[in-house]
Amino acid sequence: MSNTITIALDAMGGDNAPSEICAGAVEACKKFDDIEIVLTGNTERIKACSDLHPRIRIEHASEIIDPDEHPANAIRKKRDSSLRVAMEMVRRGDAQGCVSAGSTGAIVAGGVLVVGRIDGIDRPALGVPIPSMGGKIAFTLDVGATVRCKPENLLQFALMGNVYSRKILGVPNPEVKLLSNGSEDIKGDDTVLAARELMEARNTLNFGGYIEGNEIFFDKADVIVCDGFNGNIALKLGEGLIQGLRTMLTDEVKKSFMAKAGMAFLYPTVKRLLARFNYEKYGGTPLLGVKGAVLKAHGRSKRAAIVSAISAARRYIAEDGTAQINREI
Amino acid sequence: MSNTITIALDAMGGDNAPSEICAGAVEACKKFDDIEIVLTGNTERIKACSDLHPRIRIEHASEIIDPDEHPANAIRKKRDSSLRVAMEMVRRGDAQGCVSAGSTGAIVAGGVLVVGRIDGIDRPALGVPIPSMGGKIAFTLDVGATVRCKPENLLQFALMGNVYSRKILGVPNPEVKLLSNGSEDIKGDDTVLAARELMEARNTLNFGGYIEGNEIFFDKADVIVCDGFNGNIALKLGEGLIQGLRTMLTDEVKKSFMAKAGMAFLYPTVKRLLARFNYEKYGGTPLLGVKGAVLKAHGRSKRAAIVSAISAARRYIAEDGTAQINREI
Repeated sequence: MSNTITIALDAMGGDNAPSEICAGAVEACKKFDDIEIVLTGNTERIKACSDLHPRIRIEHASEIIDPDEHPANAIRKKRDSSLRVAMEMVRRGDAQGCVSAGSTGAIVAGGVLVVGRIDGIDRPALGVPIPSMGGKIAFTLDVGATVRCKPENLLQFALMGNVYSRKILGVPNPEVKLLSNGSEDIKGDDTVLAARELMEARNTLNFGGYIEGNEIFFDKADVIVCDGFNGNIALKLGEGLIQGLRTMLTDEVKKSFMAKAGMAFLYPTVKRLLARFNYEKYGGTPLLGVKGAVLKAHGRSKRAAIVSAISAARRYIAEDGTAQINREI
Repeated sequence: MSNTITIALDAMGGDNAPSEICAGAVEACKKFDDIEIVLTGNTERIKACSDLHPRIRIEHASEIIDPDEHPANAIRKKRDSSLRVAMEMVRRGDAQGCVSAGSTGAIVAGGVLVVGRIDGIDRPALGVPIPSMGGKIAFTLDVGATVRCKPENLLQFALMGNVYSRKILGVPNPEVKLLSNGSEDIKGDDTVLAARELMEARNTLNFGGYIEGNEIFFDKADVIVCDGFNGNIALKLGEGLIQGLRTMLTDEVKKSFMAKAGMAFLYPTVKRLLARFNYEKYGGTPLLGVKGAVLKAHGRSKRAAIVSAISAARRYIAEDGTAQINREI
């Protein structure tokens, strides 16, 4: 069992917990021979969900962190919550990584307070693989862990993003860009300008300068660096717009027989198109900069998304992401 | 002629200058009896474009500001540029407003340096009317005039946005929201938190708290306040995503006969849907906080977008937007 990868999975986090989380765990164990999963949460409720797999065990946790609790307070006070118990396992080395579809804020707080930061990393970052029109993945960080950043934080995000893109997403020489309000060198505020200089001076980075908001989806970068405030807004805006257009199209199509007929023909195409933006495929959101694989799965995750997040955690552990980041810093 | 509104129009700014700008001027004069337009730019080139309208005259300007020039330097040095000449007319009171499809940066710089700020407004803001799914217009500012803001700047934007939404967009009691990285009160960085408090304390504002990125297109606010860095990225991201989805759909449809047939039926629906996001309809981007109506038209503007921007400038002048903002501050 020496090469077995142990992943703690927060069974109680997310809109579809615990049933879909447990189902995801079972599917992941079937898919990957080299993992074992520790489900953290209410034993009775987890047991009731499914016949678990031989490589799944349960670590009881009596509490649950609600999405609207103050993240750091919840992590500090709810010592027996499913999320904290999962993170304690990583801290002790009983698991190499953990996955949760619970509160993003609590995952970030737990990553810093329980799992602990990597030496040389001042602030953690959440990274999201964003699909581009031509098929590239733009790994974008931070999308919400560190609200406002110093230039040094942004440089560290660039270095971590570089590692993640290369090692986990398999991009040979990732081009790293900095999100700004224009492509010209004179754009950006003081922080972004200073971060740009730091990145330019770092010769291990394939740094490509600024990227603008309208270029995000056009295969212009492998890694996009921004602060957590901007990244959060940009990510949600993109999600919201796609969801909105889908709703509008559905509503409009209902109004006309012609459109209904057209939609029937067009359906496979539209489905394929929207599938490119399906978060279930892209393996969750890693919290980078902490000592272990910490993966946030989407709050609406069903089993497929959980499998995908477990798969990303597994790969991060197999590639020893933490050591790779250590080396880069 | 006492009630005639005079608008200076930069004939040389934008991708389709001067021909589409001049054509827009002619159409606007046909549409509105109460305006006269002064085209600024190269007399020979403007004359060659079209038979102008009796209510159009030309003010010669020998220089043009290029999009990639440093905005403030260009405004300072190119005293005989079409944009500066238009703005000087506003400063002198020879025109009550001006419209340009030229460099955004130069328009902002000219607004501050030539036209001048309204007393009590520390920084100007560019506002964009963003169409929502249900038909509401979310007037969003700042989208690029003031890169990073103090809380006081954001409050002033809220007050100006309130006036514009009420008086020019015709919303009776606009709900104003502040763009943030979450809807809970604890979200936001120090600046946003402080701005929130200032807005809550202002009882002339119908302030609705935070708005998240995914809510922008869902009729959740009449006015959305943010700093210019965030606003610029958000706006461009939305534009880029819509453009990208359109391209992807076109490409995918080409690949399949079924999809082609479907698209033929669906075309009127998709066209109607995309038309809601057509910038030509929404009358340009006002630069608020300066002493006069200064409207930025999209760089790709054709005549319809120019007419739309002139129409917004006309309305702003008729409603005496500057005095309204003065009163609100």
